Amino acid sequence: MARTVREELRRSVVVEDNNHSELPTIYVITPTYPRPEQIPELTRLAQTLMNVPNIYWLVTDDTDTPNQDLIDYLTFTGIPHTYLNTPMPPKYSGHKVKPKGVANRNAGMEWLRQHASKGVIYFADDDNTYDIRLFQEMRYTEKVSMWPVGLVSNKEGLSTPVVSEGKFQGWFEGWNGGRTFLVDMAGFAVPNATMPYKPGHEEDGFLQSLHISPYDIEFKAEQCTKMYVWHTQTKKSSHQPNNIFKKKYDNTNIRVLKELLYYDFNPKNPPNL
Amino acid sequence: MARTVREELRRSVVVEDNNHSELPTIYVITPTYPRPEQIPELTRLAQTLMNVPNIYWLVTDDTDTPNQDLIDYLTFTGIPHTYLNTPMPPKYSGHKVKPKGVANRNAGMEWLRQHASKGVIYFADDDNTYDIRLFQEMRYTEKVSMWPVGLVSNKEGLSTPVVSEGKFQGWFEGWNGGRTFLVDMAGFAVPNATMPYKPGHEEDGFLQSLHISPYDIEFKAEQCTKMYVWHTQTKKSSHQPNNIFKKKYDNTNIRVLKELLYYDFNPKNPPNL
Repeated sequence: MARTVREELRRSVVVEDNNHSELPTIYVITPTYPRPEQIPELTRLAQTLMNVPNIYWLVTDDTDTPNQDLIDYLTFTGIPHTYLNTPMPPKYSGHKVKPKGVANRNAGMEWLRQHASKGVIYFADDDNTYDIRLFQEMRYTEKVSMWPVGLVSNKEGLSTPVVSEGKFQGWFEGWNGGRTFLVDMAGFAVPNATMPYKPGHEEDGFLQSLHISPYDIEFKAEQCTKMYVWHTQTKKSSHQPNNIFKKKYDNTNIRVLKELLYYDFNPKNPPNL
Repeated sequence: MARTVREELRRSVVVEDNNHSELPTIYVITPTYPRPEQIPELTRLAQTLMNVPNIYWLVTDDTDTPNQDLIDYLTFTGIPHTYLNTPMPPKYSGHKVKPKGVANRNAGMEWLRQHASKGVIYFADDDNTYDIRLFQEMRYTEKVSMWPVGLVSNKEGLSTPVVSEGKFQGWFEGWNGGRTFLVDMAGFAVPNATMPYKPGHEEDGFLQSLHISPYDIEFKAEQCTKMYVWHTQTKKSSHQPNNIFKKKYDNTNIRVLKELLYYDFNPKNPPNL
């Protein structure tokens, strides 16, 4: 009965095994922002990453205020990580279309420029679903590797290079927008070499800045025929809890749980996303 | 480069370590049904369970037709499991309010009666989020253990026993309905003894049939002050893919991916849920 979490769960073993120094490190950059779903979604992603060796996780949070619950949770996971506060610049606060996740991703890349010269970069949003085999697929990327992304919220419901007999045939993507690389943020990885990328660009700009062409793509996931990542979207929690504030719950566990559910989150004044 | 998934990923190690024969087994019963989100959601849950020792997973699928992709995936995970086809009885097909997951859970319990006499039972839907510490909390349940469930879609946004100074004070739950146990399906575990439960009952009926009272509850998760499980709901995929059927994609990877995304799933004729 006196067993501790550490004794029974596999975390400590994972951390030990995570140190496969012969494997290239995968730097996973996860933009996130405060909301009631934040901790559950990052919990799911963390428990995915716990099954993958040699991961370094950059969690970049769109807030000025460090989220202590999240910081404590990241420490608990045992996954090598850095937590960064990366608020969206105030100049966008009046914009109708806001650059979601851009400040977060740029901050992650800036950190990488300063702290790492090898390995692979992957942008992993917190609400997607990742099969652990995806990380195996991307680990030895030389220029750019790509694979299909399922359940994308465009009309195709799928984003992937079209491949026939091992050759690039074009893109399967709902929206063109004059882009060279019609690829979803979850659909590629690149090596973390020193590279002339332009911060602030999205998928296409980022990949173009690497001076690669679609013919340089390394098709992963069995020539883009396997699905190892999906845009699963989580419904926003729409409840308007009132009873939780009632005085009769003073001196009960409800007071503590309220903080866990709604820490720093004011639905009337959501963060810059 | 020739490394296999098995060599690099932690799965084989997990399976080995999963055999902690001194620990009580946790039987996780997961009702599920065919839809585009089925494989991603079960992938996330599987990767959670891979971090927990001595789990036995009963995946009970509301369909007549075995889902071979799912069966193959379950084998890949290395988690000890049984896959059951448990379609909703046809008599409910005309009902407006259908008994969601009831046939699945009963089939899981029937399997347990036949194959196991010890351990703990937990009902884990495929779209919830589980912190691995939850399984540690429930493993030594003697009569019934309970903990808070967050993001529940009732107006409280939370479901938990109210606890003060270690004592049961009542329930925090949006709906009463004359129940003795106002508890969410994800909020309790019971031992798998031979017990006089009535199949077909939901949470309250099930717990009442165990002849326990609220005062028998073992409060877990630090006296119900920690949140280790959330009702995260996944948005239904609303895309209406048409381009994916175009003839120009014959002999490309798009044909293969179509099957992965829409296997046996006809949005015009969804299954009985």
